[in-house]
Amino acid sequence: MALIVQKFGGSSVANTERLRRVAERVVRTRRAGNQVVVVVSAQGDTTDDLIRKAKELTPNPPRREMDMLLATGEQVSIALLAIAIDCLGEPVVSLTGAQGGIYTDNVHTKARITRVSADRVLRELGAGKIVIVAGFQGITVSGEDYEITTLGRGGSDTTAVALAAALKADMCEIYTDVTGVFTADPRIVPNARKLAAISYGEMLEMASLGAVVLQPRAVEFAAVYGVPIHVRSSFSDEPGTIVKELTVMDTGEKEVVVTGVTHDTNVAKVVLVGVPDRPGVAARIFGALAAERINVDMIVQTTKEEKSTDLLFTISRDDLARASQVVRKVAQELGAKDVLEDQTVAKVSIVGAGMMMNPGVAAAMFEALAECGINIQVISTSEIKVSCLIDESRVVEAVRAIHRRFLEDTLSPADEGQTRTAGEAEVNAGAGSGNSGTGMISRAG
Amino acid sequence: MALIVQKFGGSSVANTERLRRVAERVVRTRRAGNQVVVVVSAQGDTTDDLIRKAKELTPNPPRREMDMLLATGEQVSIALLAIAIDCLGEPVVSLTGAQGGIYTDNVHTKARITRVSADRVLRELGAGKIVIVAGFQGITVSGEDYEITTLGRGGSDTTAVALAAALKADMCEIYTDVTGVFTADPRIVPNARKLAAISYGEMLEMASLGAVVLQPRAVEFAAVYGVPIHVRSSFSDEPGTIVKELTVMDTGEKEVVVTGVTHDTNVAKVVLVGVPDRPGVAARIFGALAAERINVDMIVQTTKEEKSTDLLFTISRDDLARASQVVRKVAQELGAKDVLEDQTVAKVSIVGAGMMMNPGVAAAMFEALAECGINIQVISTSEIKVSCLIDESRVVEAVRAIHRRFLEDTLSPADEGQTRTAGEAEVNAGAGSGNSGTGMISRAG
Repeated sequence: MALIVQKFGGSSVANTERLRRVAERVVRTRRAGNQVVVVVSAQGDTTDDLIRKAKELTPNPPRREMDMLLATGEQVSIALLAIAIDCLGEPVVSLTGAQGGIYTDNVHTKARITRVSADRVLRELGAGKIVIVAGFQGITVSGEDYEITTLGRGGSDTTAVALAAALKADMCEIYTDVTGVFTADPRIVPNARKLAAISYGEMLEMASLGAVVLQPRAVEFAAVYGVPIHVRSSFSDEPGTIVKELTVMDTGEKEVVVTGVTHDTNVAKVVLVGVPDRPGVAARIFGALAAERINVDMIVQTTKEEKSTDLLFTISRDDLARASQVVRKVAQELGAKDVLEDQTVAKVSIVGAGMMMNPGVAAAMFEALAECGINIQVISTSEIKVSCLIDESRVVEAVRAIHRRFLEDTLSPADEGQTRTAGEAEVNAGAGSGNSGTGMISRAG
Repeated sequence: MALIVQKFGGSSVANTERLRRVAERVVRTRRAGNQVVVVVSAQGDTTDDLIRKAKELTPNPPRREMDMLLATGEQVSIALLAIAIDCLGEPVVSLTGAQGGIYTDNVHTKARITRVSADRVLRELGAGKIVIVAGFQGITVSGEDYEITTLGRGGSDTTAVALAAALKADMCEIYTDVTGVFTADPRIVPNARKLAAISYGEMLEMASLGAVVLQPRAVEFAAVYGVPIHVRSSFSDEPGTIVKELTVMDTGEKEVVVTGVTHDTNVAKVVLVGVPDRPGVAARIFGALAAERINVDMIVQTTKEEKSTDLLFTISRDDLARASQVVRKVAQELGAKDVLEDQTVAKVSIVGAGMMMNPGVAAAMFEALAECGINIQVISTSEIKVSCLIDESRVVEAVRAIHRRFLEDTLSPADEGQTRTAGEAEVNAGAGSGNSGTGMISRAG
């Protein structure tokens, strides 16, 4: 008897009809002889509606009260799903994050799971029940007080993976509105194919680079605890993509160079012009941004003239207004000449575990862009990815050219769902990332 | 420094504008130098919307899951009200029923408060905060499991009174959409006047008889713990009605015969015709109804012929469908001749603590009805009330006639809000009870 954790996002439970379909799938899994723990997000637009209600009162509601407010969304979902499953005649119980033993730190609205106490879940499973746990929420204990917390964007994925880890589940299935992880966004690249499998490291880069199929934090968690994830569609039974630690047997060893192409248009560029070139300047600027919890992505420093330097970095467009305030203040204190901002940039990236052993990969990517006449503004690399900042208007062209260069020259479109074998370089941008600017703003639950 | 518990119903917090108004009132009370604990219900139609969602899935959702679902309504309200109060610059914290220490038994959807553990509320008050507690909900502990419960219709009133009792509050203010407790429903009786004060016993009878201003259970609780209640309007500052143990000084001692006239159209009559007249028959029937949690109000047994009897009783119309099933089954087993049902009846009642010392009161009521040609189907009395079952179509006429007989003959319409003195018999039907059938069906929160 396998133990399976199934996570369903907000769109999968948005209305009565969909709730029924999810209930049927869960019951089918149970009747096939498995123990099932289900994690659900808030229905459809519930969370946005609740946020709107709060914002009608004030632009800056206290975070603790926002958690109190938002946690209700998932509580509604778990109750309704339990009712739907009960209708089908299977014993079932719904649990809030607190009842499910999801303990977090006390950073309201962006809490991190610190501990999963699975006693109750195990007891209910032992009693033969399907157990439904509210995603996205947890509880923190300070002194004698229990406080409701939420995990921030995409928190339900993390709840599911954390529960799967604590329960030593055989599989954590993440149901989404796409059929799996693709070699590039299929809406942009018609030849994009679904990957049968992808490694945690690659998935993490992809997720961080704009593929919104899985939340980066959930992937990190899965990697640490070795939880295999199956990303698949709520609306069909076809197999999706398995995320796990790939072995040589899975991947072969030769030629697997590029696994996916991703793009991200939720990018803004900031340039500090004429910053004095002395120690501590970068620390000043990025320290100030960190204090405001603004994540900086690419950073480039160029020294043009003596004792003065230009400092360029990229951030999420959502953070630009706040970052601009912070940076302009620091720039003035430092005596910088100017601060430039640009919201018409985008990032295209290639990801692949095989990349580190192939020094020519980055060059081939630059070449593909050059052949289209696309100018590269900034380059950033890690062991398994290369990212280029380009003009936003050229993104589609760039993704297609890179996909063609690495994935379509050497092979014909393969069947979906096949296991990746040596000689096949499959690529992914996450089907949900067409406009990852949007994808990253909307909460995946 | 006084400690005041303020309870606001669903319509008082139905939208942003009303939430702001409630926040201002709470803050004003706080800034006047009082400690304030606020209890709120779910916003407007929230609870009905949640029930509708569940009923779309099944007509009989599991009660535990209904509690999980419905408890979210109040959680939304407390968070939004806390946000609104925070905007006004007062320290505030919202607490769920569980956090507020509202412990109940485990009868889901109709739980009763068994204990209030006010430690956290007291600690937050001590820290200078306004404390908001979710009404209508509590928590039950069974073994190691904490389960969310709801108190059933009007539960928020009970939460407020129970908290006031546990905190030894100086006053429990219940804010409603009427300005207080009236001598009769002002929509039916233009001469009806607001009572300055009423005793727990009278209020309890009134509430049970159809006046929906206060929930009977809340009044019971208040009587046991001696919590003074101030029923008043959310929309004005005028004083309402104080519910407390009236002393001789409050009431005078003479002539206070009838305090209020109430009516209830949410009544159905069931008659078992030709039941064998032997011991145990009544126990059989009413035991079966009790097992289904159907409350029976009036009961009359008449023996027409030897060894056979007719048994008549009244119940809430909401329960008629279920009661019919139960009764027809038992009637068959007992060999009764027939079962008749009637949904065109209503109950009019008079309530007054002075009644028990005035044997002529009941007769005067019957006389008032007879003068209008209204037939009395059933009579039921207690120490402080007389109820008559009549045809539903005659209700308005009956209430007016009775009000005129007991309250308008001897005095001219008095000023609203005055203290009741000897010689004045004031009467009440609760302004919300115009169609108490509706009033009793809709949940007051």
